[in-house]
Amino acid sequence: MPRVSTDQLAARRQHILDGARRCFAAYGYEGATVRRLEQSTGLSRGAIFHYFRDKDALFLALAEQDARRMADVVAEQGLVQVMRDLLDTARKDGDGSGDESSWLGTRLEVSRRLRTDPEFRGRWQQHSAELTAATRERLDRLAATGALRDDVPAAVLAQYLELVLEGLVSHLAMGLPADALDGVLDVVEQSVRRR
Amino acid sequence: MPRVSTDQLAARRQHILDGARRCFAAYGYEGATVRRLEQSTGLSRGAIFHYFRDKDALFLALAEQDARRMADVVAEQGLVQVMRDLLDTARKDGDGSGDESSWLGTRLEVSRRLRTDPEFRGRWQQHSAELTAATRERLDRLAATGALRDDVPAAVLAQYLELVLEGLVSHLAMGLPADALDGVLDVVEQSVRRR
Repeated sequence: MPRVSTDQLAARRQHILDGARRCFAAYGYEGATVRRLEQSTGLSRGAIFHYFRDKDALFLALAEQDARRMADVVAEQGLVQVMRDLLDTARKDGDGSGDESSWLGTRLEVSRRLRTDPEFRGRWQQHSAELTAATRERLDRLAATGALRDDVPAAVLAQYLELVLEGLVSHLAMGLPADALDGVLDVVEQSVRRR
Repeated sequence: MPRVSTDQLAARRQHILDGARRCFAAYGYEGATVRRLEQSTGLSRGAIFHYFRDKDALFLALAEQDARRMADVVAEQGLVQVMRDLLDTARKDGDGSGDESSWLGTRLEVSRRLRTDPEFRGRWQQHSAELTAATRERLDRLAATGALRDDVPAAVLAQYLELVLEGLVSHLAMGLPADALDGVLDVVEQSVRRR
């Protein structure tokens, strides 16, 4: 067997994650059968499960990667920007299944499994903690510049933003219209800032 | 057969709804089998389905009744008060299954079915419209007293409140802690009012 470089391994792993993202977004966790994962990645089950122990490990790796990218956006632009990105994706293609860089599909599945699978809930906790930490840091930086309202603890504002994000994800999961929500997100953004 | 007065019929119907509410809250829609509905109402399936065509009709009647009660609270005290009530119930007993007057359990099931059952979504639309109308009316009344912020259309504020409600329901459905959310609801309440 030819030797494969670390770069090639990483690229192959990412290729699988991108295909799996489309697959989970289109069919949901239960509907993403091994056959469908093969189709969407263009690889055999042997190749896929060489990189990921099982479907659950694959989904968790995907959700982790998306959570990290979400945390990066939060650090740079805040949680409201994450919500605006989700909204844009929903407008473009409904469930994020067409856009392999979109985290909407994964986020909808994470939410669904958090509600229905207590075991998954436990495994997910550390990743949600990462996003919370990124949100807190971002708010602390805003506070240092005097842009944040200071009559409410930053921890409460962070929780507020996470609650709205959850509402948005749920709204989109129900297939409710996304068009009029920009104004709503403006209200959310204003309400954490100093007036 | 003895004749039964309209009052008695209404009381029997309400008795079934209250038992069914506990049953759906405890087991979810799918888990609320006919046998469990019999147990929680103390009535035979014959008696239950004399009043309601089938399980779906029973659930819809329950959800309708709760939506109407929710709309009443909205009219009197606003949508944020509905959220505070949900929070209180969640703190007391987790999923609202112990409290027959609680609408938390039903609300969680409505949300879940909205996400998973497109047909239910269609049937539910008219009831969600009722709540939206109650919210709009309440905001218009607040606006008339000058208590509402006037830099954002009332329709946007109504959507904002509904999005937060959805986030709260989702948060509680995931079994996330409810204790620190009072401060969050204070932020929500302030953000629709004139500062």
